[in-house]
Amino acid sequence: VLSDATGPLARAGTVVWAVVVAGGAGARFGHPKQFALLAGRPVVERSVTACRSVAAGVVLVLPEGRLEQGYGADIVVAGGSSRSESVRHGLAEVPFDAGIVVVHDAARPLAGPALFASVLAALEHGPSVGGAVCGIPVPDTLKRVDLIAGTVSGTVDRSDVIAVQTPQAFRADVLRRAHAAGVDATDDAALVEALGTTVRVVPGDPRNIKLTTPADLVYAEHLLGG
Amino acid sequence: VLSDATGPLARAGTVVWAVVVAGGAGARFGHPKQFALLAGRPVVERSVTACRSVAAGVVLVLPEGRLEQGYGADIVVAGGSSRSESVRHGLAEVPFDAGIVVVHDAARPLAGPALFASVLAALEHGPSVGGAVCGIPVPDTLKRVDLIAGTVSGTVDRSDVIAVQTPQAFRADVLRRAHAAGVDATDDAALVEALGTTVRVVPGDPRNIKLTTPADLVYAEHLLGG
Repeated sequence: VLSDATGPLARAGTVVWAVVVAGGAGARFGHPKQFALLAGRPVVERSVTACRSVAAGVVLVLPEGRLEQGYGADIVVAGGSSRSESVRHGLAEVPFDAGIVVVHDAARPLAGPALFASVLAALEHGPSVGGAVCGIPVPDTLKRVDLIAGTVSGTVDRSDVIAVQTPQAFRADVLRRAHAAGVDATDDAALVEALGTTVRVVPGDPRNIKLTTPADLVYAEHLLGG
Repeated sequence: VLSDATGPLARAGTVVWAVVVAGGAGARFGHPKQFALLAGRPVVERSVTACRSVAAGVVLVLPEGRLEQGYGADIVVAGGSSRSESVRHGLAEVPFDAGIVVVHDAARPLAGPALFASVLAALEHGPSVGGAVCGIPVPDTLKRVDLIAGTVSGTVDRSDVIAVQTPQAFRADVLRRAHAAGVDATDDAALVEALGTTVRVVPGDPRNIKLTTPADLVYAEHLLGG
């Protein structure tokens, strides 16, 4: 149940569940960073624990063949052939009394309680809001490339562009509807946007890095220590 | 003079100079990361040294009031009120016999000789090529945001988007022409693109990070050690 700090939804007793995505069928032999130890604890376990600050229950989506360990989640399920399909596998396990579903990448173990509270609070900006994401400004110049010619085709105006992180929070009915058609997208918010539903944006956290390389693990250990 | 390894331009004896941008007027009290010690040597000195792998001479653009130290550059000049203006101040000091100018951010001290050689080599793809940049795929989902409403207005297709790094290499005449109008842009390539001149793209290096936070320094030390 949502904590009191996050407003009316909490007072209405809305049940919050989280889906933590740690890999699908294609990740059977890959993405080891999610299972690496970060300051003595598996990355994926840290991500599951992080969700506990707002979520009554956590569904963990693991690669096929790695289901023997639950990393503290309530329910474990095997992923699909794409990220979106993995989320759908997780969503199918979320109890129907859940009013809000938070989707979180296992590879972002440093997301803190304030960030989870922030995306949940953003859901309360009115009934038209179906989702909320967190994001940070893009520090680098972005260019579109003609991939065949190997030339620049233009510079992207990034004054209104953010790099999106997880957690992302959704009204459960909206997220289920967004995923009903079985379409793949880069993130869940894109599917909710496609419904024509409003997705709110809150500031992300630069420390909430996604672990993709061994060096990221070292960096994350530094962030945890500092 | 360009080394033999990089092709016809080298054989023609093309003179290469570099402009290293370490801050403008607005950075007088800021951007200390560029002057911090990275594994015992100032970041800016490492960036100047990195340019030496291809450049016969280096112009270093420093914040006003910090011109007393040259960090190994041949020429030191004060920056302007924008990054583009700082590059113009540097470009004005590049000797007229330079056929190629490499622009490099002082905050990217980890750019290696292979990356410098790569952008220079890309300039040789024919007379229509005026510049070459390096870039890496964008790992995060990008969204356009309605900044006033605080809502997502759409997800950016990033299949053909790269995050651009420096070094960027240019034919000197093209870069001077691109900067002649005194226009500001996010990078020099954008000004060259605006001339209608072809800018080539080569793969960047994920290790070639831009130092913007204290944690980046720690990360960079790890990358140097590993």
